[in-house]
Amino acid sequence: MPGLRDDLRALLAGVQRGEVEPARALDQLAQLPFRDLGFARVDIHRELRQGAAEAVLAEGKTPQQVVEIVRALLEGGAGSALVTRADADARRAVRDLADDAQEHELARLVWVARAVPEPRGVVVMLSAGTADGPVLHEARVRAELLGTEVVVHEDVGVAGLHRIASGLSDLARADCVVVVAGMDAALASVVGGLVPAPVIGVPTSVGYGVADGGRTALNAMLASCAPALAVVGIDDGFGAGTLAARIARGRE
Amino acid sequence: MPGLRDDLRALLAGVQRGEVEPARALDQLAQLPFRDLGFARVDIHRELRQGAAEAVLAEGKTPQQVVEIVRALLEGGAGSALVTRADADARRAVRDLADDAQEHELARLVWVARAVPEPRGVVVMLSAGTADGPVLHEARVRAELLGTEVVVHEDVGVAGLHRIASGLSDLARADCVVVVAGMDAALASVVGGLVPAPVIGVPTSVGYGVADGGRTALNAMLASCAPALAVVGIDDGFGAGTLAARIARGRE
Amino acid sequence: MPGLRDDLRALLAGVQRGEVEPARALDQLAQLPFRDLGFARVDIHRELRQGAAEAVLAEGKTPQQVVEIVRALLEGGAGSALVTRADADARRAVRDLADDAQEHELARLVWVARAVPEPRGVVVMLSAGTADGPVLHEARVRAELLGTEVVVHEDVGVAGLHRIASGLSDLARADCVVVVAGMDAALASVVGGLVPAPVIGVPTSVGYGVADGGRTALNAMLASCAPALAVVGIDDGFGAGTLAARIARGRE
Amino acid sequence: MPGLRDDLRALLAGVQRGEVEPARALDQLAQLPFRDLGFARVDIHRELRQGAAEAVLAEGKTPQQVVEIVRALLEGGAGSALVTRADADARRAVRDLADDAQEHELARLVWVARAVPEPRGVVVMLSAGTADGPVLHEARVRAELLGTEVVVHEDVGVAGLHRIASGLSDLARADCVVVVAGMDAALASVVGGLVPAPVIGVPTSVGYGVADGGRTALNAMLASCAPALAVVGIDDGFGAGTLAARIARGRE
Amino acid sequence: MPGLRDDLRALLAGVQRGEVEPARALDQLAQLPFRDLGFARVDIHRELRQGAAEAVLAEGKTPQQVVEIVRALLEGGAGSALVTRADADARRAVRDLADDAQEHELARLVWVARAVPEPRGVVVMLSAGTADGPVLHEARVRAELLGTEVVVHEDVGVAGLHRIASGLSDLARADCVVVVAGMDAALASVVGGLVPAPVIGVPTSVGYGVADGGRTALNAMLASCAPALAVVGIDDGFGAGTLAARIARGRE
Amino acid sequence: MPGLRDDLRALLAGVQRGEVEPARALDQLAQLPFRDLGFARVDIHRELRQGAAEAVLAEGKTPQQVVEIVRALLEGGAGSALVTRADADARRAVRDLADDAQEHELARLVWVARAVPEPRGVVVMLSAGTADGPVLHEARVRAELLGTEVVVHEDVGVAGLHRIASGLSDLARADCVVVVAGMDAALASVVGGLVPAPVIGVPTSVGYGVADGGRTALNAMLASCAPALAVVGIDDGFGAGTLAARIARGRE
Amino acid sequence: MPGLRDDLRALLAGVQRGEVEPARALDQLAQLPFRDLGFARVDIHRELRQGAAEAVLAEGKTPQQVVEIVRALLEGGAGSALVTRADADARRAVRDLADDAQEHELARLVWVARAVPEPRGVVVMLSAGTADGPVLHEARVRAELLGTEVVVHEDVGVAGLHRIASGLSDLARADCVVVVAGMDAALASVVGGLVPAPVIGVPTSVGYGVADGGRTALNAMLASCAPALAVVGIDDGFGAGTLAARIARGRE
Amino acid sequence: MPGLRDDLRALLAGVQRGEVEPARALDQLAQLPFRDLGFARVDIHRELRQGAAEAVLAEGKTPQQVVEIVRALLEGGAGSALVTRADADARRAVRDLADDAQEHELARLVWVARAVPEPRGVVVMLSAGTADGPVLHEARVRAELLGTEVVVHEDVGVAGLHRIASGLSDLARADCVVVVAGMDAALASVVGGLVPAPVIGVPTSVGYGVADGGRTALNAMLASCAPALAVVGIDDGFGAGTLAARIARGRE
Repeated sequence: MPGLRDDLRALLAGVQRGEVEPARALDQLAQLPFRDLGFARVDIHRELRQGAAEAVLAEGKTPQQVVEIVRALLEGGAGSALVTRADADARRAVRDLADDAQEHELARLVWVARAVPEPRGVVVMLSAGTADGPVLHEARVRAELLGTEVVVHEDVGVAGLHRIASGLSDLARADCVVVVAGMDAALASVVGGLVPAPVIGVPTSVGYGVADGGRTALNAMLASCAPALAVVGIDDGFGAGTLAARIARGRE
Repeated sequence: MPGLRDDLRALLAGVQRGEVEPARALDQLAQLPFRDLGFARVDIHRELRQGAAEAVLAEGKTPQQVVEIVRALLEGGAGSALVTRADADARRAVRDLADDAQEHELARLVWVARAVPEPRGVVVMLSAGTADGPVLHEARVRAELLGTEVVVHEDVGVAGLHRIASGLSDLARADCVVVVAGMDAALASVVGGLVPAPVIGVPTSVGYGVADGGRTALNAMLASCAPALAVVGIDDGFGAGTLAARIARGRE
Repeated sequence: MPGLRDDLRALLAGVQRGEVEPARALDQLAQLPFRDLGFARVDIHRELRQGAAEAVLAEGKTPQQVVEIVRALLEGGAGSALVTRADADARRAVRDLADDAQEHELARLVWVARAVPEPRGVVVMLSAGTADGPVLHEARVRAELLGTEVVVHEDVGVAGLHRIASGLSDLARADCVVVVAGMDAALASVVGGLVPAPVIGVPTSVGYGVADGGRTALNAMLASCAPALAVVGIDDGFGAGTLAARIARGRE
Repeated sequence: MPGLRDDLRALLAGVQRGEVEPARALDQLAQLPFRDLGFARVDIHRELRQGAAEAVLAEGKTPQQVVEIVRALLEGGAGSALVTRADADARRAVRDLADDAQEHELARLVWVARAVPEPRGVVVMLSAGTADGPVLHEARVRAELLGTEVVVHEDVGVAGLHRIASGLSDLARADCVVVVAGMDAALASVVGGLVPAPVIGVPTSVGYGVADGGRTALNAMLASCAPALAVVGIDDGFGAGTLAARIARGRE
Repeated sequence: MPGLRDDLRALLAGVQRGEVEPARALDQLAQLPFRDLGFARVDIHRELRQGAAEAVLAEGKTPQQVVEIVRALLEGGAGSALVTRADADARRAVRDLADDAQEHELARLVWVARAVPEPRGVVVMLSAGTADGPVLHEARVRAELLGTEVVVHEDVGVAGLHRIASGLSDLARADCVVVVAGMDAALASVVGGLVPAPVIGVPTSVGYGVADGGRTALNAMLASCAPALAVVGIDDGFGAGTLAARIARGRE
Repeated sequence: MPGLRDDLRALLAGVQRGEVEPARALDQLAQLPFRDLGFARVDIHRELRQGAAEAVLAEGKTPQQVVEIVRALLEGGAGSALVTRADADARRAVRDLADDAQEHELARLVWVARAVPEPRGVVVMLSAGTADGPVLHEARVRAELLGTEVVVHEDVGVAGLHRIASGLSDLARADCVVVVAGMDAALASVVGGLVPAPVIGVPTSVGYGVADGGRTALNAMLASCAPALAVVGIDDGFGAGTLAARIARGRE
Repeated sequence: MPGLRDDLRALLAGVQRGEVEPARALDQLAQLPFRDLGFARVDIHRELRQGAAEAVLAEGKTPQQVVEIVRALLEGGAGSALVTRADADARRAVRDLADDAQEHELARLVWVARAVPEPRGVVVMLSAGTADGPVLHEARVRAELLGTEVVVHEDVGVAGLHRIASGLSDLARADCVVVVAGMDAALASVVGGLVPAPVIGVPTSVGYGVADGGRTALNAMLASCAPALAVVGIDDGFGAGTLAARIARGRE
Repeated sequence: MPGLRDDLRALLAGVQRGEVEPARALDQLAQLPFRDLGFARVDIHRELRQGAAEAVLAEGKTPQQVVEIVRALLEGGAGSALVTRADADARRAVRDLADDAQEHELARLVWVARAVPEPRGVVVMLSAGTADGPVLHEARVRAELLGTEVVVHEDVGVAGLHRIASGLSDLARADCVVVVAGMDAALASVVGGLVPAPVIGVPTSVGYGVADGGRTALNAMLASCAPALAVVGIDDGFGAGTLAARIARGRE
């Protein structure tokens, strides 16, 4: 298990064995688990060396900053590095860094995948409309990098309820379902009432006027009567993909 | 057609025939079309004498005020008088006034129906949950008093989509459909995608937290992709019933 | 009647006649009613071949995607295809596809009309100010393509109440009235109190500050005392036009 | 003119004449213009002795506190003292203090009028519905105590536009018009487009759901196209009455 | 008095004298008081010929539309024509139309003044900060064109309370005070507590974050304890100038 | 797998075997899967007979209605029936119905557990403060009835970060973590950064002022940087418990 | 210095000296710094024994729970224990526990002060109106228990700006100023512009309508131009008192 | 102590000594403390000559206006002049004015420092993420110009709680801590629970969707249980720096 506890335990053991001075232990605790790039502190935990996926939000960073963080991650042993909300400049910069970088223009993604875990579990991802696509694919790539099989059904909104039917057999074998929808987000409620798997709703900022930048979809999903539906932030495909993969893979 | 235009035309004709002085015409225009009770101005138009339904919002009025307005309406020739949001006192006061008054406790309604128009058209009214019942029945009684057949299906929310199926044959013959739903109001989108008739959504204030007093249902209905769906105010069964009856009866 | 029920009935009959295997029926149910373009699923129902109008929201789609959907609709037998919120590129692309395409620059519309139903019913559409024009014309074109006569009165806001008077004789013969208004949207209440026909309010995002992107107009319309007034989403001329045509044409 | 400037001028003259020490002047400036009751600081300016009206908001004060402030005002020479938002206990307590106290139960007012200025100017006050009455009467009593003639027309909402006509001759002679309205507040826009006098809108918290505690009425009034309309806070009859009287009386 | 009543009275008198047929009267009522430019209906009432100021909101109109409306107003006899929210193109177009057009770039105004009423009354206008200037000058030009003397004090916010002092002697002689302020708008409360004249607050959209596009200033002004303070919409200098001039000139 | 698909498949097979008429199939589809109590439609699916847990929201229902639904569920074969938001009367009514009913006063729960599935998986539930207790226990009871082991740590908010440490060893073995927190909900972010399991946040309406009925907690959870955190509605312990159990038990 | 760091350092030293096993250290870290009452975890840090003040929010706890926490605190060595938002029952329960308990009914406080630190620094607390009193006194008692001199000026709102003058000499010697104000909260801006000390604004939920439960005051304070003004939550006198005392006492 | 009181005292003394006429004193009071640039009133108080820092908000001002204000400040004797929210043009204009001007591009700052007070006190400033940097540095420069030592730790968000640990020894010696954080702002709560110094939270507008332009961070900080945490406006690094310096320097 990654986190504070392991670091504490190792450190305490070191102190007991006389290998670490208490005063130093405190300093180590403070400095060990990240690498300070000046403008950012990159987590390069032990588990990174074991091949876990890491991610960088490009928004609010220069392409150069993005590249430096990606390099630090890969050098630190990350199995993959995913950059989200990356504009054309940032994506090009990462591709210049790594020949094996892959890209999804619409979803503004660029990633380097060097050691993706063996897939485990199935996630089905549905979108209500074509315009929800970028968010869905952010979720998809993230989940795949974390080692999950992802099945996608796009543009299956409830205004044409019969379109959902085509996904029923996939839904039946899902370990987790992700529903990406803006506007009224009714698709989440309908799917939530049909499937036995945990459902994650991703409200999107698609639409105008009363869509309110995704607030209406968010609130509608949260107010849904479907009992095993939880929600991530507006347009947060990354979070949904992360959570879906954790659920689908089960306890590691 | 009721309204200002007919009054203007009659008045102008009277002036031309020399039967009405211009100065008087102006006064008449101001005083003719209502009866001043001091605390309220009751419309007692000509068309009332022809049997139209009239309504009183009891909220913010004393039982005595409600009774006086109902009496003025009935004396003015209203075919029926419907009191909405009437508490037990107001309902009792109206029953004391009129032996033939009818009452719906849950929906806080009391009404006197003396000359209801011959029914024309069919309105199907659906509610998503049991708690939406009072608003549905306010819409139902209003539409029936305006002369429409109303068919009711309660508790058919999308979490159990199969429940809607039971209403499909009724939906197929509707001139207008009213969907009463709180929370995520997904039922309105699903029904709006299934039926060819105009659909009126009534968001309800049912639920807590993110339901936000009906705001979430309201916004979700307005953001729905179902293209022939319009919405009335939160909990406004009265407005939905009025509009549904007008649509179902067609041009008089 | 379009929708799930008809498909179900046909399918069940086929199964009974031994023409359809149950396992296949399920697959057909899932695949039949739409055509999968990859990025979108286009409804090409039977009724399309009978000449119904179809519509595409261009926002969030590339011109090429729009053109592909329009082509699929026309090839599928749609009587007309209307593209809304289409920028200059999308409009040009559709005109390149079809010589008989028509365009409304201000309202960002382009459409191809090949088999518009014989007009039935009259819809009167009013706007409060010049700036509400684009939304009004989106509603107008949609309603006309669905087979309705539309009469337009623009810039008749209540600040000059006398301007409404000029529309009274048209209002008197309307089967449905559409009021397009931003800001305080008082026009909807005034018209709603004058006419006997169903009234659909379309709040617009015109104005600044307290206009709040159309929220104030939306709420004012919903809070109106006019009893047969329902509301569609902010700037949703398309929805209003669809609903108005359904109301005006009556049960098909 | 009341206010800081006069106090400063008098004090500076006293210092110049050697009658006031600078150190003392500063203290006097701090202590002169009010009377400290411990829990409240009551303004007992010179102008109070000349008969101006003063007011107390009862909400959040005990009846005893209200009575002490009223007594301080009257002893300080106020021509009248008006207590707003006074419950039955507070009203009784003031009537016990002063035999000549008057009361308006519905509007939760109690007041003592001993030297009301000779009326000057005419204010017309309109309400859209019966339920707006309490706010209208708070405005009326306040304006009358400040020395203005007030003409009242209640329940003249735009759903029945013809009702407004009855008030036209009064509106024509108003120095200021006050419109009290909740819900969509369309009355303010309509009146603002008809009359040449300044118009003050008072949004009320009447109504439920989308009325949003008066927010919708407030925003609609502020977004109105009527160009000489200003607005006070929700349910703030007191503010409207004060402002209307100042406008109607003109420069003193 | 301008408005519906005068038109009605003249029309009724004409009918009585046999000069007007009732059927025609109705048509005249509908058509008389405006001139239909197709995209706009321009009020060219009798009183316009008497020299009243008229105004055009340029936002949402093409420069050519603005020019046509200005021409119609001036030809209709307007004493002046003020165009607000006019960008450089619209301003140039009006200057091309009329050699005597004047302009205020910062406030995005252009106007033609041919017959401004003799000034009557004094309006003092204060702004809290430099950035509130454009809104203040929109109010100033509007009030001057309506025939009022305007005195301006800019950048007198409460953070430096001593700056207000410089305006005290002007405030003392004002018939109306206009306070233009964004952010916390505390200046309105402070001024409202100092002066005896009616005060009009104009919240501005100046500031970022919690300023919330002027909402915070608006709410703070409405919640102010200053009792004779009313508020117009955010950034609505035009409305404030109109109202201030009406108040300062008194009954005409 | 429960849901529409199984019903369809069974029905289609029956039709093919000639056992079911197509016309009847449609009726059966509509009527089969629920029991109509008049005021409610109770799902009594096949899987209920296999011992699944069912739930009733008591709010908005009379005690008698609650009892009838519980009876229908138990008679229909539900393994357990949980009533949420049940006041004292509703709880007593259910205890009168079933001797083996259990109750949690603080969390307003009453339930009958007759066939709870063998526990599988571990859910750790944390609350930030004592006042979050009722929501936490609603989640706990729900998850236990669905067949999960639940470990509870209450009052471990981040203001005393060291309190969280005591739960670390439990967190390390969780299949799913539920964080119940109001106010700033920082606990969810901190826990989300520490644990490898999926985390479900339940914002609560605890607190006053800026807590805003739970909105602040909700938004803070949604905006959290912790990447595997999803959120249910405000105070929705029921939904969190359902989802947590599904995640912890994995694919059935 | 209280907090995690000291605990860590002590623990590490213990481990190094061989007095503490690493495995045990981890357990101790988790269990040491609080006392688990079952429903609450009470911090009974070392520093408590040195006389620091502790506080309990009574809202959402039973009187019995409050008493148990207070007892735990006092037994743990707290110099004082302050219970906020305590209703009459909770206050009585604490008085029953401790003879030396003190109480402030209006501010809903009860406290036991056994070892208050020697006062250091001066805090001036101002309220805008009488109704802000309870929040001001919550701040006052809290700051006094933390060892600060507090000077109070109540009811000094800006509508009567001259009232503030009386507090100028106190303001001049303040180490920190607390301004408690609802409605438009203009007092905070005015004071923030006058004094050189840090200013803490406490918005209150006093007022109705646009006051919006304190939101308007909160936003106005945050938008204030006064540059050394920070704000705590609505009605959070406790937080303001804590912070003011820390500022006024300086580094300990 | 700067402010109104000193001016008053000096003036009164002058009047008493016969050196100042009362009428003149009033004029002086109004004109003395600022310099009127026409578009702005620049405070050039006595204390400026003593070297205090002054600041200019460039937003909404032309580069030329900014330069004129900076020149007036420096000529008036300001020890430093800081221009915030300055775009490239404004920064260049100030550098052209003063050779010794310094600049921070990311934070959009330009400043001239000629007489910065001897540093006193220590402020620790933390940011949750890289994107919060500009706001942090605005706070840092401001505090340094006011004469304080500032220690910076960037990118120490709670998702990696161990990163905070590195700053613990700095936090232990802080006189004031500033936490700059967007999104859920959980860092403020965690730090507020760890340190004994006053904490100032600066919510930032970093993030999308539910981050809501900084509102979520603002509300979460205000709702925090950390008892000595106060908050400034969204992105208001300037205010935080000012306040932090005042707190850290203590009473001057």
